Amino acid sequence: MTEATDRRRERRARQANAAGAARMRPISYDLPVYELLRPEGVQRVHDMSMRILGELGIDFYDEEARQILKDHGADVRGETVFFDEQLILKYAGMAPRQFTQLARNPQNNVTIGGNQIVFAPVYGCPFVQDLDRGRREATLADFQNFVKLAYMSPYIHHSGGTVVEPTDEPVATRHLDMLLSHISYSDKAFMGSVTAGKNAADSVAMAEIVFGADAIREHPALLSLINVSSPRRFDDRMLSCIKVYARARQAMIITPFILAGAMGPTSIAGTVAQLNAEALAGIALCQMISPGTPVIYGSFLSTIDLQSGAPTFGTPESQVALYISAQMARHYGLPFRGGGTFSSSKLPDAQAGYESIMVMIPTIMARTNFVLHAAGWLENGLVSGYEKFVLDCEILGMLHTWAKGVDLSDEAFAFDAFQEVPPGGHFLGTGHTMRHFRDAFYRAELFDYNSAEQWELNGAPDSYARANAKVKQLLASYEQPALDQGTAQALREFVARRKAAIALEPHDF
Amino acid sequence: MTEATDRRRERRARQANAAGAARMRPISYDLPVYELLRPEGVQRVHDMSMRILGELGIDFYDEEARQILKDHGADVRGETVFFDEQLILKYAGMAPRQFTQLARNPQNNVTIGGNQIVFAPVYGCPFVQDLDRGRREATLADFQNFVKLAYMSPYIHHSGGTVVEPTDEPVATRHLDMLLSHISYSDKAFMGSVTAGKNAADSVAMAEIVFGADAIREHPALLSLINVSSPRRFDDRMLSCIKVYARARQAMIITPFILAGAMGPTSIAGTVAQLNAEALAGIALCQMISPGTPVIYGSFLSTIDLQSGAPTFGTPESQVALYISAQMARHYGLPFRGGGTFSSSKLPDAQAGYESIMVMIPTIMARTNFVLHAAGWLENGLVSGYEKFVLDCEILGMLHTWAKGVDLSDEAFAFDAFQEVPPGGHFLGTGHTMRHFRDAFYRAELFDYNSAEQWELNGAPDSYARANAKVKQLLASYEQPALDQGTAQALREFVARRKAAIALEPHDF
Repeated sequence: MTEATDRRRERRARQANAAGAARMRPISYDLPVYELLRPEGVQRVHDMSMRILGELGIDFYDEEARQILKDHGADVRGETVFFDEQLILKYAGMAPRQFTQLARNPQNNVTIGGNQIVFAPVYGCPFVQDLDRGRREATLADFQNFVKLAYMSPYIHHSGGTVVEPTDEPVATRHLDMLLSHISYSDKAFMGSVTAGKNAADSVAMAEIVFGADAIREHPALLSLINVSSPRRFDDRMLSCIKVYARARQAMIITPFILAGAMGPTSIAGTVAQLNAEALAGIALCQMISPGTPVIYGSFLSTIDLQSGAPTFGTPESQVALYISAQMARHYGLPFRGGGTFSSSKLPDAQAGYESIMVMIPTIMARTNFVLHAAGWLENGLVSGYEKFVLDCEILGMLHTWAKGVDLSDEAFAFDAFQEVPPGGHFLGTGHTMRHFRDAFYRAELFDYNSAEQWELNGAPDSYARANAKVKQLLASYEQPALDQGTAQALREFVARRKAAIALEPHDF
Repeated sequence: MTEATDRRRERRARQANAAGAARMRPISYDLPVYELLRPEGVQRVHDMSMRILGELGIDFYDEEARQILKDHGADVRGETVFFDEQLILKYAGMAPRQFTQLARNPQNNVTIGGNQIVFAPVYGCPFVQDLDRGRREATLADFQNFVKLAYMSPYIHHSGGTVVEPTDEPVATRHLDMLLSHISYSDKAFMGSVTAGKNAADSVAMAEIVFGADAIREHPALLSLINVSSPRRFDDRMLSCIKVYARARQAMIITPFILAGAMGPTSIAGTVAQLNAEALAGIALCQMISPGTPVIYGSFLSTIDLQSGAPTFGTPESQVALYISAQMARHYGLPFRGGGTFSSSKLPDAQAGYESIMVMIPTIMARTNFVLHAAGWLENGLVSGYEKFVLDCEILGMLHTWAKGVDLSDEAFAFDAFQEVPPGGHFLGTGHTMRHFRDAFYRAELFDYNSAEQWELNGAPDSYARANAKVKQLLASYEQPALDQGTAQALREFVARRKAAIALEPHDF
């Protein structure tokens, strides 16, 4: 495919965006992948992980999970489970190298693994932030707004999960509102709940309503985020979700969340070895429960400020760790999740811009298959920023262009243009430019390329102010994607029934 | 060397910084270099460049230069010079693979080429900008301020050249004030004038006063920026400077300045082929004049907005072009200059942060040997920003850390820490953390890691405001490096004599 065809496709996607139904396919990354470690380095990380798994073990706070691990050959002593290398490699090797997650619009199905890079929004923020109202607790209305923004962005391929925490809804039923919002306000793929095993079961039930019980067992319709309680610990909540999702053959991301210095040692090599051990242990359990269950090797690794203990994001150490953990996932033939537009900043200022790209470029160049937090992240993940979200989307657009690399066709070498233009001339009027000017270069919408004079006349808006206007324009022009009436009705009934039932249960959290 | 030793060195450098005499050595980049093109791609770019040089030629607007080219075997027709492949490769091959530039403090000598990465400030801005006074014409006082800031940054290795254009000084004598300022306010290496051949001669004379006439012929004391007037044209001013510097064996960067779509075709492949042809032609001329003269292969390549014609910086296309041109320079065994913290933004906002890193990461990963514009750049290079400068320096610090890669020693794998910490525990109190917490991670000074509450209490400053305070603190604490009295006196006399002489000359610009 030529650059120009590609660009025309992109332009059409942008035009579609204006009408509220945009899409760009996930990135097919065919450029060279950046391998920071040499093979000996990969081996050293692997070896240390095997020592951790074999000599120190991982705690699993669920009796049934421990029994499963024991039945499959692990050495269980109390709550701690020890794995030998052969056992880990046998079960990690059962996971598929790539899989397809269903979206309710089949055009938005995503392949995860291989050379594919899928972008999903920020996840888990209890707060939102914007220029008009500052920082505040997130609500279900905010949740739906971020689902809409992700739906409208041509560069976000996935609707994500807890895009913000809807703190105005009861904790016990919140997962139902979130799932219903993803399904109603977007037609992209989405994530399941991990707040309790029964909430995971609700997620599976809702996916069955939308896609059918057989269909989701052939290709997963849910992708759920299993966090390891690092160091070396899977809690009962996550294990109950693993059991539900593995038995329903729904996809999971097994992600150790490690801030080096706090939940991991004060060094990158040690922390990555720990992450590798924890991820592989969780992945092995999934495969023991249901061989071939789609899983992603997750890496969420940053640092703390060793003077204050505060988390720090967008640091050079996290950039190094990202490359290495991606290499480890490839070493085991597993799809990889990592990176995002991380920042410690409280608002979308220069710090946020610097830090976000400091992580996002390695994210791409490590060929990360699933990028959670690809847009919106602020303040160490406590905050989903409206303006930050659309600014990050601009960057995702640029990274789509970056990932195309360079066209080396005769047409791209443009010898006819050189023949036309004398020394000191310009290329604006050449036949080559005429053939390509519409689609030649990525054109940012939010970045200002005006002269200083024009920019002053426009009111000298910084990128925060311009993004604010863009958010308002997007939300005002949002159009809901059609949803089959029967499905919509069945989902509403399911949610109502479950809410009524949950209201009668003793609340355990 | 261990990570910890390295970090301690860095900490000492930072402490020295507080006293106004900081330095970190240039980066020795031993990580894998990112090679975007496969060897066939390099060959295709080379082949198209040879077609441009052989069939279309390059204009040289200086009769003596054309005579030199002709005497060495080029085919000269009118003002246009045609090169065949053998001729270009023969002369480009005479340039050294790396060289050392002298600084008046020998500890600040810099090696350019090989695995070395040297950072220098922004160059050529007619305007400056800060939070207090906005955008305004630059003065000699601003020039001296930026020399001081570069001197004080541990992460800037070189004092640069026209850090801003001192518009309050007469054009005809401005170069003397700039050179005297570099020598007086910094002890790092600096650049020569390229505004006229006689100004280049003044630069050489001043370098001889500081270093001695013989010394600078052994190792260059000046590094000067020769721009090609793309497309395919060397003007008389640049050629007169090339002749002076090559004969004095002073180093030059031969840099085509191409905005693809305007001074080059509307495609990356074609534009890089043009850049390659132009750079090689200039480098060959330098070697014909004085074989072995140190030269750097320069690349200054960005895009225009094809709808408005405005220049655009920090774009994905420029990122691709940077990797490719670095590969071409390596292909010919030449030191490479490219990249910088480019942005089209008018102020240091999120756009500036995103764009700057979008270029700076490829700059590092392409192992760019000399990075002009490593700090301060705003508004397409029209503006040198005070706050932008110190924010960029923070990023340069992070990139120093990034370039160290990862320590894979047993100590870094920290098995003793894993043995100490039970599942669910934390690593803050381990022996390993105690051994490393002081120097383990890069600690940014300008990036805010406070809690939202603490940040609010601090007045909720964004990074622009924090950088403003940092600039003031740095300039207030600046201490001038000692300069030998006799040298200072000789320089003052030279400048006074030249200013008097120039006042009597007819002004030709």
